[in-house]
Amino acid sequence: MTKLELDVIGVVRGGRSEPVHDNWGSVRAVIELDKAKVRPRALAGLDAFSHVEVIYQFHRVPLGTVVQGSRRPRDRTDLPDVGIYAQRGRNRPNRLGVTVCNLIAIDGLSIVVEGLDAIDDTPVLDIKPYISGFAPRGEVREPAWAKEVMGRYW
Amino acid sequence: MTKLELDVIGVVRGGRSEPVHDNWGSVRAVIELDKAKVRPRALAGLDAFSHVEVIYQFHRVPLGTVVQGSRRPRDRTDLPDVGIYAQRGRNRPNRLGVTVCNLIAIDGLSIVVEGLDAIDDTPVLDIKPYISGFAPRGEVREPAWAKEVMGRYW
Repeated sequence: MTKLELDVIGVVRGGRSEPVHDNWGSVRAVIELDKAKVRPRALAGLDAFSHVEVIYQFHRVPLGTVVQGSRRPRDRTDLPDVGIYAQRGRNRPNRLGVTVCNLIAIDGLSIVVEGLDAIDDTPVLDIKPYISGFAPRGEVREPAWAKEVMGRYW
Repeated sequence: MTKLELDVIGVVRGGRSEPVHDNWGSVRAVIELDKAKVRPRALAGLDAFSHVEVIYQFHRVPLGTVVQGSRRPRDRTDLPDVGIYAQRGRNRPNRLGVTVCNLIAIDGLSIVVEGLDAIDDTPVLDIKPYISGFAPRGEVREPAWAKEVMGRYW
């Protein structure tokens, strides 16, 4: 088994129309779930959570620009050259993004979110509630560049 | 666009051979990346992180048992009936799992992890470093059942 076929369960509507690096924190968008695939009952109880985790695809990244080896994050010469699986950049194999964002409201099959770093029309593969028990266990260690690159992200 | 085809970049080896609910915290396993698809350079610098986020598929969940609406988590009658997108249960559309686990060691294209709640042979779609800047912004709110269900998970 070397390939998996997944269903697009919904799309991001609104928010930004172009990918930019920073200031995603206040961006609002709506995840519109596909009524042919999702029943309203599938969202029952989601409103009890403050945050959702969204699994989506960076669909606008051209396949020819996907990095198989390493690159400097954001192509910044002041940041180290690290492997594509050692960073969260979007030019990655499978082009998957996973982001925890704030859940603002739910209306039928529309989920209003804030701080989702995905542009208009982004295909969504899954939505999970953020459960604090899934936070990292033990002390978190990360290199300095990973903090530097997040400085103005939200 | 209603379907996406994704590459399986590796598989989980070792750890548990059967899915069980609890006590995943001390389970060690190896993510073996596919050398036909991944270059060693793609992991350069990953060892500077304490945790990785693994995106995988619960491949042993029969398609016929995928829940489209709602269910009680773990089918426990003491927990509320909530939508499949309001829980992280594995019987979900697309059967995707996303888990942050401890990174123990990297040897070539093998990544040793601890606390990954995926069984032997699980197909892996992506690996991202855990960057603290991607933690939830603002106060986390979750229902009581979500804490209850995680009581003995790790």
